[in-house]
Amino acid sequence: MSRMLEEIRQQPERLERTLRNELKRVERFKRIIGKRRPALVVLVARGTSDNAALFGRYLLEITTRIPVSLAAPSIYTLYNTRVNFHEALVVAISQSGESTDTNLILQEARQQGALTVGITNEASSSLARLAQQVFLVHAGKEKSVAATKTYTGQVLILYLLAYALGARIRPDDLARLPDRAALALRLEPEIAALSERFRFMDHCVVMGRGLNYANAFEFALKLMETCYVVAERFSSADFLHGPIALVEPSFPVFVFAPSGVTWTPVREAIQKLKSLKAETVVITDSSNMPAAEIGTRVIRLPQRLPELYTPIPYIIPAQILAAYLAAQKGLNPDLPRTLTKVTLTL
Amino acid sequence: MSRMLEEIRQQPERLERTLRNELKRVERFKRIIGKRRPALVVLVARGTSDNAALFGRYLLEITTRIPVSLAAPSIYTLYNTRVNFHEALVVAISQSGESTDTNLILQEARQQGALTVGITNEASSSLARLAQQVFLVHAGKEKSVAATKTYTGQVLILYLLAYALGARIRPDDLARLPDRAALALRLEPEIAALSERFRFMDHCVVMGRGLNYANAFEFALKLMETCYVVAERFSSADFLHGPIALVEPSFPVFVFAPSGVTWTPVREAIQKLKSLKAETVVITDSSNMPAAEIGTRVIRLPQRLPELYTPIPYIIPAQILAAYLAAQKGLNPDLPRTLTKVTLTL
Repeated sequence: MSRMLEEIRQQPERLERTLRNELKRVERFKRIIGKRRPALVVLVARGTSDNAALFGRYLLEITTRIPVSLAAPSIYTLYNTRVNFHEALVVAISQSGESTDTNLILQEARQQGALTVGITNEASSSLARLAQQVFLVHAGKEKSVAATKTYTGQVLILYLLAYALGARIRPDDLARLPDRAALALRLEPEIAALSERFRFMDHCVVMGRGLNYANAFEFALKLMETCYVVAERFSSADFLHGPIALVEPSFPVFVFAPSGVTWTPVREAIQKLKSLKAETVVITDSSNMPAAEIGTRVIRLPQRLPELYTPIPYIIPAQILAAYLAAQKGLNPDLPRTLTKVTLTL
Repeated sequence: MSRMLEEIRQQPERLERTLRNELKRVERFKRIIGKRRPALVVLVARGTSDNAALFGRYLLEITTRIPVSLAAPSIYTLYNTRVNFHEALVVAISQSGESTDTNLILQEARQQGALTVGITNEASSSLARLAQQVFLVHAGKEKSVAATKTYTGQVLILYLLAYALGARIRPDDLARLPDRAALALRLEPEIAALSERFRFMDHCVVMGRGLNYANAFEFALKLMETCYVVAERFSSADFLHGPIALVEPSFPVFVFAPSGVTWTPVREAIQKLKSLKAETVVITDSSNMPAAEIGTRVIRLPQRLPELYTPIPYIIPAQILAAYLAAQKGLNPDLPRTLTKVTLTL
């Protein structure tokens, strides 16, 4: 078994551990930040952590109404610009806590007197030392180069951050996420069988919307890293604004399709794809039966999920599919060619 | 000749016209905004206009130090969230001025009392009526579905906006852009010949960094829309954080490579690609001779450009390449399958 698959399976237990260990710290932070609500949140990250940040962008704006900006590292590291952080809460996310560019921006924010938060899997990392407030992802050592359990751990911490910033998110609801992740894991045999279908797929599109937009990026990244599939990622709206011209019969499109506010436009996009005879693989749950009817293939979680809490359970079948597809293609998902675990960039 | 190519060729004259007609309005706006400097700029757009917005994000942060957020429309249109715009300058960009989602966000911003700016090619559009301050792209009617002259027009207006917000950009320097665009157009015969090489290319990566990151998105969009090439777009740093695993011998990567602060990391990425035997097509100018030495193929503008003013001249050879490649593939770039000129999304 690959380490990637092993780590995918650890997720329910690691999510539970993260929640148990960090909740008190979050409650304390909630009391501090309540008196100093930021005018802006800046999220700083790279790679998979940047996909978690993209989720955080939607979650924080939707649940707290505070505007969010995803930092563009080169503005600091190459152009040496000191963007004005005076009114901002600056949140850096890094599995290793050793991303030089991410840490440099956090340092700049501290110097300007902004409040800084670090989210990392490594308690003794540079990031953990630099940030005023640290939240730890208790995922355990991540050995696979392809990140899985740290992504869901970071997403969980972002829910906690939203809670600290006043979002109507109840810690009791978050406490259900480990079980929801466990239910998603039960799909493994079904997905293992499905993976064979894509043995010779060399490109595809992954589509998501709103809170699941980041999952489209994350699934595409896993497909690129571990299966060497050229995987584009779009929101259903951006896709209709041009890239849909790509679609010819059999073109594969993976779609995150929860029930809730994003369903109407996502359904329209799936129907459009259907009329173009594209192959759609729809990831959904029991609360969205229409989705199960219109996909070429459907991955359906055996539970009814409120849209707000779909991102963690929904990425799990996608992670499993990437791990099995890599195996189908004769690749080792733990050792993608050209990559190492910690990437240093400026 | 395709309309797309015809409109590509119009760019020098239309840029000149836009500058001539809007400069006074910008000077007036500069006096107003000087007294009410925003804490945050929010850019709102879709499709090609969103690529111009991505350029604006880098330009405005680098030259004004004001933090910028690229709006995620679904947060407003689907989740009905009223993100707090009190301290923000909200800028909507739309060729037609009739994007329902973009206009809805602008309306929300006005209701909250934020200062609003509209950038559009259509003086009598809904956007032009909604925004308190309107800047017009004088590109003339855009008949090709694939936008070209409105993209460079929007980019020009964003320079003017940065100038109004206090950036050290001189209108005299902007006045040189039409000539610089004209010099870029001289590459047409060379690029027409080069396009044949990519006749059977079905996927690729486009890479840019900093001020040219948006050009990577825009070139990739043209390749998807008009040539049906699955074109991924990355910054050189993000590319090294995972997607580089895709690269096998002959994998095609197009790279925007100006001299200046982004050159060192971009050069490293090109060298890495070279070691993997990828095919690199480097877009650069006479001021960056090393770039001309390390690409498999090089498109070199016959002038020396300061990095700040590369985005408009650099996108022009890419537009030409997309138009000729579509023709090589037997496609009509003016009529991409499935698309219409105005896309309505929520």
